[in-house]
Amino acid sequence: MTLAATPTPPYTAVIFSSIRTSVEGGGDQGYGVMAGRMEELAAQQPGYLGIEWARAAEEGGTNITVSYWADDDAARAWKKVAEHTVAQERGKTTWYADYRVRVCTVERDYGHPSPAH
Amino acid sequence: MTLAATPTPPYTAVIFSSIRTSVEGGGDQGYGVMAGRMEELAAQQPGYLGIEWARAAEEGGTNITVSYWADDDAARAWKKVAEHTVAQERGKTTWYADYRVRVCTVERDYGHPSPAH
Repeated sequence: MTLAATPTPPYTAVIFSSIRTSVEGGGDQGYGVMAGRMEELAAQQPGYLGIEWARAAEEGGTNITVSYWADDDAARAWKKVAEHTVAQERGKTTWYADYRVRVCTVERDYGHPSPAH
Repeated sequence: MTLAATPTPPYTAVIFSSIRTSVEGGGDQGYGVMAGRMEELAAQQPGYLGIEWARAAEEGGTNITVSYWADDDAARAWKKVAEHTVAQERGKTTWYADYRVRVCTVERDYGHPSPAH
């Protein structure tokens, strides 16, 4: 995986943080498959700029997914699409003990190597 | 770990995304210890609201840490403190093949359970 090649700010970031439920026997109950499908779906939406995620290895750990969008309207449209998938409903009870979504305006960025934009 | 109990937006989020270097033999070269120290240090700074992180289990995977701050000034002050630690310099060459920092204004949030604020 590589970091998302986002453009010069401003643009919109959606931070999705969640605590995975503990699972008897350690199976992921389809979480990995769902996450892959959601990424494919996001990439087809207007205004999609990229996605980054880090998944906790252990149960009870924190997962963070950040998706990047051209503007707030694109982020809102994605929320509607996501809510119509099975993932959103099932996720509340099966996959996540707790989750939080934060919608942000990216003001500036820096890094190493320097952002290509 | 629990999700950060952030207040009603707006506030500032600093998204730190990185790709871990591949390590011969699989040791973390002190990364875990450094990450713990950085969190302690952040928690002592003015305007600190909380932190969330998800660390990749596998080498070459993506780590994401999001720290939350009362405002942009607090986020800038933290950057200066962080740069004066060993972590920042060493991190560029030892721990991270690639990293990106994005400083954002959180505009709104939602979740389950609903945010307490």
